Amino acid sequence: MKHKSDIEIAQEAVIKPIREIAGQLDILEDEIEQYGKYKAKLSLDLLKRKQDAPDGKIILVTAINPTPAGEGKSTVTVGLGQALNLLGKKAVIAMREPSLGPTMGIKGGAAGGGYSQVIPMEDINLHFTGDLHAITAANNALSALLDNHIHQGNEKGIDPRRITWKRVMDLNDRALRNVIVGLGGPVNGTPREDHFDITVASEIMAILCLASGLDDLKKRLADIVVGFTYSKEPVTVGELGFQGALALLLKDALKPNLVQTLEHTPAIIHGGPFANIAHGCNSLLGTKMAAKLGDYVVTEAGFGADLGAEKFLHIKTRAGGFEPAAVVIVATVRALKMHGGVKKDQLQEPDKEAMLAGASNLAKHIESIQQFGLPYTVAINRFTSDADEEIEALLDWCAAHSHPAALSEVWEKGGAGGMELAEKVIQTIAENKNQFSHLYDLADSIEAKVEKVAKTVYGAKAVEFSSKAKKQLKEYDGYGWSNLPVCMAKTQYSLSDQPELIGRPEDFTLTIRELKPSIGAGFIVCLTGDIMTMPGLPKKPAALGMSVNADGKAAGLF
Amino acid sequence: MKHKSDIEIAQEAVIKPIREIAGQLDILEDEIEQYGKYKAKLSLDLLKRKQDAPDGKIILVTAINPTPAGEGKSTVTVGLGQALNLLGKKAVIAMREPSLGPTMGIKGGAAGGGYSQVIPMEDINLHFTGDLHAITAANNALSALLDNHIHQGNEKGIDPRRITWKRVMDLNDRALRNVIVGLGGPVNGTPREDHFDITVASEIMAILCLASGLDDLKKRLADIVVGFTYSKEPVTVGELGFQGALALLLKDALKPNLVQTLEHTPAIIHGGPFANIAHGCNSLLGTKMAAKLGDYVVTEAGFGADLGAEKFLHIKTRAGGFEPAAVVIVATVRALKMHGGVKKDQLQEPDKEAMLAGASNLAKHIESIQQFGLPYTVAINRFTSDADEEIEALLDWCAAHSHPAALSEVWEKGGAGGMELAEKVIQTIAENKNQFSHLYDLADSIEAKVEKVAKTVYGAKAVEFSSKAKKQLKEYDGYGWSNLPVCMAKTQYSLSDQPELIGRPEDFTLTIRELKPSIGAGFIVCLTGDIMTMPGLPKKPAALGMSVNADGKAAGLF
Repeated sequence: MKHKSDIEIAQEAVIKPIREIAGQLDILEDEIEQYGKYKAKLSLDLLKRKQDAPDGKIILVTAINPTPAGEGKSTVTVGLGQALNLLGKKAVIAMREPSLGPTMGIKGGAAGGGYSQVIPMEDINLHFTGDLHAITAANNALSALLDNHIHQGNEKGIDPRRITWKRVMDLNDRALRNVIVGLGGPVNGTPREDHFDITVASEIMAILCLASGLDDLKKRLADIVVGFTYSKEPVTVGELGFQGALALLLKDALKPNLVQTLEHTPAIIHGGPFANIAHGCNSLLGTKMAAKLGDYVVTEAGFGADLGAEKFLHIKTRAGGFEPAAVVIVATVRALKMHGGVKKDQLQEPDKEAMLAGASNLAKHIESIQQFGLPYTVAINRFTSDADEEIEALLDWCAAHSHPAALSEVWEKGGAGGMELAEKVIQTIAENKNQFSHLYDLADSIEAKVEKVAKTVYGAKAVEFSSKAKKQLKEYDGYGWSNLPVCMAKTQYSLSDQPELIGRPEDFTLTIRELKPSIGAGFIVCLTGDIMTMPGLPKKPAALGMSVNADGKAAGLF
Repeated sequence: MKHKSDIEIAQEAVIKPIREIAGQLDILEDEIEQYGKYKAKLSLDLLKRKQDAPDGKIILVTAINPTPAGEGKSTVTVGLGQALNLLGKKAVIAMREPSLGPTMGIKGGAAGGGYSQVIPMEDINLHFTGDLHAITAANNALSALLDNHIHQGNEKGIDPRRITWKRVMDLNDRALRNVIVGLGGPVNGTPREDHFDITVASEIMAILCLASGLDDLKKRLADIVVGFTYSKEPVTVGELGFQGALALLLKDALKPNLVQTLEHTPAIIHGGPFANIAHGCNSLLGTKMAAKLGDYVVTEAGFGADLGAEKFLHIKTRAGGFEPAAVVIVATVRALKMHGGVKKDQLQEPDKEAMLAGASNLAKHIESIQQFGLPYTVAINRFTSDADEEIEALLDWCAAHSHPAALSEVWEKGGAGGMELAEKVIQTIAENKNQFSHLYDLADSIEAKVEKVAKTVYGAKAVEFSSKAKKQLKEYDGYGWSNLPVCMAKTQYSLSDQPELIGRPEDFTLTIRELKPSIGAGFIVCLTGDIMTMPGLPKKPAALGMSVNADGKAAGLF
């Protein structure tokens, strides 16, 4: 049987006017700004009005180390939200918004899948409500103002060779990774090396996602370090006086966006920072608003639990002063087989033994979540290629180790395919005592924080800092940056910093190559190995199959 | 008396819900998509439903050669629309949308001024409904796909040295004028020289403004020439197969935007191509929609009548198959004084004689409009610094030459300050027989078309083509491009191609330095001198004074 494509399912769906969805959530007429009939921005006044209302329980969806195709974390997030609603619970989904780059490149779309999607998927995958464009504009306005400052006399003495602020583009565009700007003689600026990142890698994206309001946004923007002077002092946006204009450009982007799932479950889709050089979670304001509107909030964090969840728990919960009620760890038969040593082109073949060997990866992630003191449930996200005996063996493995687990068939069946998971999650929250605590203190040194994450969450034996990183540690301490949380930039394919170390590597040393200050976002990025912050397009980009017909209907988003 | 700033006036204004404005225009519920409470996109279905309805009369607002500060053409356009409504006429304004670059740079805003503004001015001046961002994304997606084509094997044999397609940014950013991209070795693309234009200079902006619908948009996108092969054959977007994805990115941007003026006159603000390297008019769809919704449409074209109006009359009317009912030529005392030889820093001083000498500039523009066979009215746009005797002398000059003329005080008084102008325009339309005709035929050679415009509209004695331009004329003829209209790129400060030739220069030769094919837009750009397509920021950019307070209220847009 041929399955329908995501866009076919999405375009056949009955969609409700967003005013109706908002009305069901007790959102007032004045607190919603429509963007077309099916999308809306939510006013920050809503948070003020509800400040004394109780908060819903936050369920964080994370995953094992994924295959390059991903394990369907967004799909499970949407499906679980739908399932909770089917159980009569008031659930609100809080997710990240997609980037145009991957959409035009490989993915074709990033709004869940199958019968667990957020809609209108074309809009969400293309310009949505313009948040990413606003971030691109603010990021690049900062660059233009900075280059203009230097061109007009360079009052602050900024060393053009030490500018760390990069331009961005919301595209996969490898030709922009390394560029020379300012060519053409004195009237055309000062020549210097520059780089473009993809917009979601902008520090401004991370700032937008961690800001508690407009004033905090402005303060964080002012704290951005754009580079260093000739005497190696950091230069901030605040010293240059750009934060007002940047905040003005972001004032609407800061408002969370409301849409719905295929089953009309409300979904707040807002922000989407990278899960390696940033913290990989949807916006704090989006999550907080969801918690004021629903009894349960289903949210996710990027990549596996070693990256997104760790940062959610160490960075986002601190910025927001909240804690999650439970964690769902998504595992798939095919990814576990990969961790058990099966080659990528043979993941379709049943191989129970390899899968059980690869369960060591799942076991480590469970252990990490236990160390944070949080109740959890394993969600086995079923793919059509999974053999029944593999699924059964994995459920048995969970039972044998007393891990609460449930099968997720939300891709194929929507909310109905996630009822057991939803019941298990509710039960887990009800039964288990939440003893959430952070694994490190902010007062710890940067080295100590990195070591704690590396050893406790990754299972590393030791951590090594390159000589460059060691030098930076000293400098950062001098600048007063040591009390910030760390944001690890690491491959998503392994618990270690080496993508080929599958399963549960144990005897490895994590190497910190370099540090990067994200002072506005409020963390120190610790880079292990090369992290790609501007993807490239494949030989046959998804864009080549895209179109729109005369009626305005999209084609080729899948 | 201190006058209120534009943003003070705009923020104090009573604004009606855009649904109400739409309702008054007989726009159906399903034909409007709200972007917040005060902005809306209009569905192209509206044009289909109204295809047999009569068209309103189109009034084109143009101007004499301006001072660098501009002569208030947009303000007169808004004020005249408001005045027509005060007279009980059903008027709809059709204008261009502002670019973020000048807003952050010098202008601070571009939505009319004083009591003749379109609102919400902050939104219109910042991201509005995202049209410019969509154009930026489409333009740069084309660049990314193009560089990727070359990186992945260059099947079409594109010569990287002969790529004419540039990237864009909706900012004033001189450092991006000349760049090298693709540095960093083989995995990071092919190194080549590239350039960034400001978004409004993108051919995609011109295409969006001339397209008659989605299918025409796709066709025009496919016709874009991105560069040449090693064997010097032009390469189009259609050959590369990118037009579907680009059209998809533009599907919402193609829909005109509805807002209102301070006096609730409906205004369709859509598109905004450069008035030198493009045709400088708001979108054809916006104008056509306005004509279906109003009995009078007030629209404008960029810079003076030698640039915007000439292109409106030769390019836009041809693309749309329509003709204007009348032209309003905006003149100011201060610009006429400049044309009479007064230095820029002394324009505030009364100088009747200089002004009357400078009226030769106005006389030439009137002559040009007469040659097109169109009825016209001179609008004397009053500035607070104008002396009464100057105004009187100018009115007398118009009367002496039998030019219909009226004073415009719309900046200070809103629609009430434009009643006389509105009455005069209505009278002119009623009395004069419209004998509109184009000054050149499409079948004429490119040289003949340029010569016709140069001699008839600019008053040039002769035209010279550089050797490069001569070579291009031959090549373009070979490619079959000779039957396209010409789009002149010339300084706006003089009727000639030399900015210092004020007044009415007569004995000059116009030099065509270079041609540029805009085959998707459907014209050949003829460049005289250096035309800046990426502005720079001034020493104190307007951005430095901008901010937003905790309630989301903008400050520093003026």
